[in-house]
Amino acid sequence: MTAAEVRSGNRRALARAASRVESRQAGALLAELFPHTGRALIVGVTGAPGAGKSTLVDQLTRVARRNGQTVGIIAVDPSSPFTGGAILGDRIRMSHHHQDPGVFIRSMATRGALGGLAVATADMTLLLDAAGFDLVIVETVGVGQDEVEIARLAAVTVVVLVPGMGDDVQAIKAGLLEVADILVINKADREGVDRLERELALGEFRAPVLKTVATDGTGVAELLAAIRRVPVQERAVERWRFRLREMVRERLLETISWEWLDQAAAQVARRERDPYQVVQEYVERYADAKRLSH
Amino acid sequence: MTAAEVRSGNRRALARAASRVESRQAGALLAELFPHTGRALIVGVTGAPGAGKSTLVDQLTRVARRNGQTVGIIAVDPSSPFTGGAILGDRIRMSHHHQDPGVFIRSMATRGALGGLAVATADMTLLLDAAGFDLVIVETVGVGQDEVEIARLAAVTVVVLVPGMGDDVQAIKAGLLEVADILVINKADREGVDRLERELALGEFRAPVLKTVATDGTGVAELLAAIRRVPVQERAVERWRFRLREMVRERLLETISWEWLDQAAAQVARRERDPYQVVQEYVERYADAKRLSH
Repeated sequence: MTAAEVRSGNRRALARAASRVESRQAGALLAELFPHTGRALIVGVTGAPGAGKSTLVDQLTRVARRNGQTVGIIAVDPSSPFTGGAILGDRIRMSHHHQDPGVFIRSMATRGALGGLAVATADMTLLLDAAGFDLVIVETVGVGQDEVEIARLAAVTVVVLVPGMGDDVQAIKAGLLEVADILVINKADREGVDRLERELALGEFRAPVLKTVATDGTGVAELLAAIRRVPVQERAVERWRFRLREMVRERLLETISWEWLDQAAAQVARRERDPYQVVQEYVERYADAKRLSH
Repeated sequence: MTAAEVRSGNRRALARAASRVESRQAGALLAELFPHTGRALIVGVTGAPGAGKSTLVDQLTRVARRNGQTVGIIAVDPSSPFTGGAILGDRIRMSHHHQDPGVFIRSMATRGALGGLAVATADMTLLLDAAGFDLVIVETVGVGQDEVEIARLAAVTVVVLVPGMGDDVQAIKAGLLEVADILVINKADREGVDRLERELALGEFRAPVLKTVATDGTGVAELLAAIRRVPVQERAVERWRFRLREMVRERLLETISWEWLDQAAAQVARRERDPYQVVQEYVERYADAKRLSH
């Protein structure tokens, strides 16, 4: 497929391009598409398991579609390195919009040990942006540092909470709250909303707090309006700094020699060599090489 | 503090060394300690939020102490980059063993944007190993790809599940099950145990399934016995391969120039340059440098 086909919104071309992004073979294509991006609003939706993120994303899509906008959804599951694909396949089939031509849904699971899912996801948003979608939503399954990183790459980060979850889940929230542009208390018809609001007020977060009941659509139009009000340009440099670093990291990792790694691991496991010395030598060789080139 | 002080089990020296490990300034110390490690059994305990991991770790500690063994506990929270310290502080105070001189508890939160928590945690296990602890338990809060990585670095990986959790949590399990040496169904006095057992049987995982009720200690001695039966040498080379790669990755990341990153991010945010080209140029310069040195 060509960049022109992707830009024209051709579904088959887009799906093939998305597969190339996932297998990290789309560098040239993305470089060609980059000048034609920057129009879509990229929204990350993350939060605790069971918070109703999928339902909320479906409802946001419904409101955006009613306003005549097209929507791309990327469902990301960093915690399922092996079987995530199947689960996210279910996610797609369960969506109310999977037969709407104005909605494109794509799942992404961890693409293997090299990491870089945040980068791959950001590339995918760029692809959907270039394909002309007005709103691109990145929805994460699960919760963890990866989700924080993925959320940081969206222009607007929405963190979804629910009243009355256990202490463990409350603990998990902590890292996410600081990256939120908007906090959503979903399932706001449940007990414990007031308490959660008070807890959030104690945290003195900069983000506004909105309440929704995703299952019946309450508060979703207001949420979309609030998303649109976030000043996305303010943190653009910060986002690119993070994203470029991740991109370089991904590429540098590819330079590590597997042969060297196998040999060194065997030696260290037999305790013939000390791992810190082994790594030091490897990196010094690299530093020497860098000096030589200047 | 010196390597000898750490090895003697001096608490103050150990705490200071742990801080150095956390701030990634302990390379020389760890290299010196490495020949004196390999004696401790390193166990990773991970699983879904609310599964009762902390209680289970407390109970494992109790059984080990009763057998006359010393225990080091490292509580890791990769999902709380900002406020994790405080939460894990609570974790330490809540432990039944925090005044037992045969138990050392240390918390670790994400050490900032450069990642590498798995490496830092592995270094911490090495430190406690060198300090003479018989059993070193790495307990993760939260769940995600980071937890999988942290768990992979332990000699024995225990994954804790509970009956009757929501679909989201079931989805999260998926990635963790494959790295488990032992699967534990905790809260096994609850409804839904049979169903969870059947689900696990369908998955055809290699790991044995044990049942515990951590709150009253049921099954915990059996769990510790099962942990001791895992043939830890079998995967030693694989673990070191993963760990060395992570160590190299951490060091390579340190070579990225912040000045370059700031400048490039500003240019890309203004859309003066294309990020793919920018990264390509950076990495090619590095590759050239490498070639020159050969």
